[in-house]
Amino acid sequence: MTALSETAKSSAGRTTISVDAMGGDHGPAAVVAGISSSAKKNPDIRFILHGPKDTLEKLVAKKKPLAGRVEIRDAQGVVSMDDKPSQVMRRKDTSMRSAVESVRDGEADVCVSCGNTGALMGLSVVRLRKLPGVNRPAIAVLWPSRSAQGFNIMLDVGADIRADEQDLLQYALMGASYARNGMEMDHPRVGLLNVGTEEHKGRAELKLAHELISKNAEAANFEFVGFVEGGDIPGDVADVIVTDGFTGNVALKTGEGTASLIGSLLREAFKFSPLSRLAALLAYTSLNRLNKRIDPRRVNGGVFLGLNGTVVKSHGSADATGISAAVKLAFKLSQSGFSEKLAARVASAVSLPQDVPTSPDNNGTTS
Amino acid sequence: MTALSETAKSSAGRTTISVDAMGGDHGPAAVVAGISSSAKKNPDIRFILHGPKDTLEKLVAKKKPLAGRVEIRDAQGVVSMDDKPSQVMRRKDTSMRSAVESVRDGEADVCVSCGNTGALMGLSVVRLRKLPGVNRPAIAVLWPSRSAQGFNIMLDVGADIRADEQDLLQYALMGASYARNGMEMDHPRVGLLNVGTEEHKGRAELKLAHELISKNAEAANFEFVGFVEGGDIPGDVADVIVTDGFTGNVALKTGEGTASLIGSLLREAFKFSPLSRLAALLAYTSLNRLNKRIDPRRVNGGVFLGLNGTVVKSHGSADATGISAAVKLAFKLSQSGFSEKLAARVASAVSLPQDVPTSPDNNGTTS
Repeated sequence: MTALSETAKSSAGRTTISVDAMGGDHGPAAVVAGISSSAKKNPDIRFILHGPKDTLEKLVAKKKPLAGRVEIRDAQGVVSMDDKPSQVMRRKDTSMRSAVESVRDGEADVCVSCGNTGALMGLSVVRLRKLPGVNRPAIAVLWPSRSAQGFNIMLDVGADIRADEQDLLQYALMGASYARNGMEMDHPRVGLLNVGTEEHKGRAELKLAHELISKNAEAANFEFVGFVEGGDIPGDVADVIVTDGFTGNVALKTGEGTASLIGSLLREAFKFSPLSRLAALLAYTSLNRLNKRIDPRRVNGGVFLGLNGTVVKSHGSADATGISAAVKLAFKLSQSGFSEKLAARVASAVSLPQDVPTSPDNNGTTS
Repeated sequence: MTALSETAKSSAGRTTISVDAMGGDHGPAAVVAGISSSAKKNPDIRFILHGPKDTLEKLVAKKKPLAGRVEIRDAQGVVSMDDKPSQVMRRKDTSMRSAVESVRDGEADVCVSCGNTGALMGLSVVRLRKLPGVNRPAIAVLWPSRSAQGFNIMLDVGADIRADEQDLLQYALMGASYARNGMEMDHPRVGLLNVGTEEHKGRAELKLAHELISKNAEAANFEFVGFVEGGDIPGDVADVIVTDGFTGNVALKTGEGTASLIGSLLREAFKFSPLSRLAALLAYTSLNRLNKRIDPRRVNGGVFLGLNGTVVKSHGSADATGISAAVKLAFKLSQSGFSEKLAARVASAVSLPQDVPTSPDNNGTTS
C-alpha cells in the first residue's frame, strides 16, 4: 500500500480526500459508488477510504474509475447513528476517527463522512482542535433559496446549542469566508437571524452581535444586512444566515420537514385520478427539474467550520449522488485553500479592537 | 344603533364576534367580504365591526348576508403594520383597541383582527389582562402536517422571545386545551421542541420543562410524547408542539418561506415548455387540491392564549377566505366555552403540587 499511499498524497493539482466509508444509512456500497462517480468526473481527486478492508477492497475493485486512485485504511469499528458521542470518543478503531486523523496528519486536505453528526463533531474537535480565536465551531449548511446562486448558507445548525455575541461574530466571519471560497461569492451578504428586522428587537446577545458584526463587516469584506427573519432563510436578502445552533437546527429540520410534506402531498395529488396521473406523466421533466433544484442531495454536505482542517458532513441518508456532491464541495474547498484563509480571517478579526474603526488597509483581502 | 346592538349581543345559540376591520394588507373591503361569507354559511354569528363608520357602512350595505347582523363601532384610528406597539398602546381611537375592548366589556365572545401582531398582543395583554397563573401569554398557530387532522398546533410563535420551564408547562396546558376545544382532539399528543429526542439533550430549561409537563400530563388529559424535533412540526408524532416564542417564530417563518419558495419553483417548472404547460392544465385540480391542503388561509388564525378572553389574529395578508377561516375558528372557540375551560385548566395546574403524583380524580375532565 505504500506506493499507492505516495500517489494518493496531495501534490500540485492533486487533491486527496479522506472518506469515511461507514455509518451512512446506505452502507459502504453507496459511498464507494459516490466517490467513483466523482473520480470519473474529476481526474484531480484521489481518496483515502476508511473502513473494513475486505469489504472496501471488493467494492472498490468493481469500480473502474477508482483504479489506482484509492488507498484503503483498515478500520473495523463502525459508528452507528444511535451511538452517543461520548462513547464514540473513547473508541480508537472506528472508520470515522481514522478518516478525521488523515486530515490531522496532513495526508488529506479534507474529510467527508455521512455518519453520526454529534460523534463526527466531537471527534473533529478533539482530533483537529479548534482554530485559535474560535470558541464554538459551527456546522454550515446550504439551503435552497431565491438568491442568484440558488441557495443560502446557514450556520450554526447544531454544533452547539448556544452562542454568545462573540460566537455569532465568528459565525459571520466563517460563513462569509465559506461563501467566498466554497461558493464563489465575492462580497456575500450576511444576515443575523432574529424575530424581527428592527434593531431594538430580540435577545440581548443579538443586539450586541449586531453591533460587533457591523463593525467587522468592511474589514472582513462582506456586506452586513442586519437582522433577517425565518422567511429570509430561503429568501434573497442574505447569502449567509447567522444564528445559534439550537435555532438553526430547528429551522433546518422544520424546512426539510415542510419540503418533504409538500413532496408527499404532491405525489398523492398526482395519483388521485386518471387525469392527474396523465398530468404527472407529462409534468415528469418539469417536476424533475424542480426536484433537482431543491434536492437536498445536490446541496448536500454540512461543513464544520472553526477547526484546523475541513470536515464535510454528508447527510446520513445520502446515496451515491449525495456522496458525490459532498466530495465535489470538499474538493472545491480544498482547491481554494479554504482552511488557511479561514484561519487567517478569524485571527485578524480577533485582533481587531472592537471600538476602533476598521482600517481601510484591511479592505480587498479575500480570505 | 341601540336596537341593533341588542340583537348583536350574545344570546342562546348566538355568538357575537368583535372584528377589527382595519390594519390588514387588503383593507376593510376584504374583511367585510370575509365576514359576509361567514354570515352566509353560519346563521348563528353576529358581528361588532370596528373602524371608520362611513367607510364600513358603505361596505356592509353592499353585502346582503350581513343585513341586520352587524353593529358598526366608529373608530377613526388605524394601526399600521409599521407602528411600534408602544405607540399603539397610547392611542385611544384605534379600531384595534375598540375591537379588543368589546371582548373585555362582555359584548362579544371573541375578537378577530388581521392587524399588527405586536400591537394586538400588547393591547390584548393590557386590556384583557393575563389569566391568573399565566406569566407569558402565547400565540398558537396551526401548521399543515401528516397528522390525521391535517395540521398540528404550535405555540408560542412570537408573543414573547423567551420562555422558562413554567411558561413551557403553561403552553403545554393551553395548547392541549386549544386542541380539545378548537380542534376536537380528545386526548392530544403534546411534544416539546428540542434539537434531539434524547432526554439528556438541549438547554437546561428544556430538561426542567420535560419533567414538569410529564408530571402534569395525566391530570390535564393529554399525552406527553417528550422531546420532538423541527421535522416533527409538520409530522405525525405530536398534535401540539411547545416551544419558546423566538424558536417558534423562526420555525414558522422558515416553514412558510420554504413552502412559498417551492410554490414559486413549481409554477416556474410548469411554465418551462409547451408540454409542461399542458401538464399544468391537466394537473390543475390536483394542484388545487394540494394548495387547499397547505393554504395558510385555510388554517388561518393564530390564537392568543393565556388572557381573559380569546383573540384570533388573522394573517396580515388574509383575503376574504382567510378572514372567513379566522371567523370560523373564533366561532368554534366561542361555542365550546374555550376561555372559561382554559382558565380552569391553567388554575388547576398551578395549584397542583409538582412533586406529588397527580390525583386520579382529575382524570376525565376535558377543559
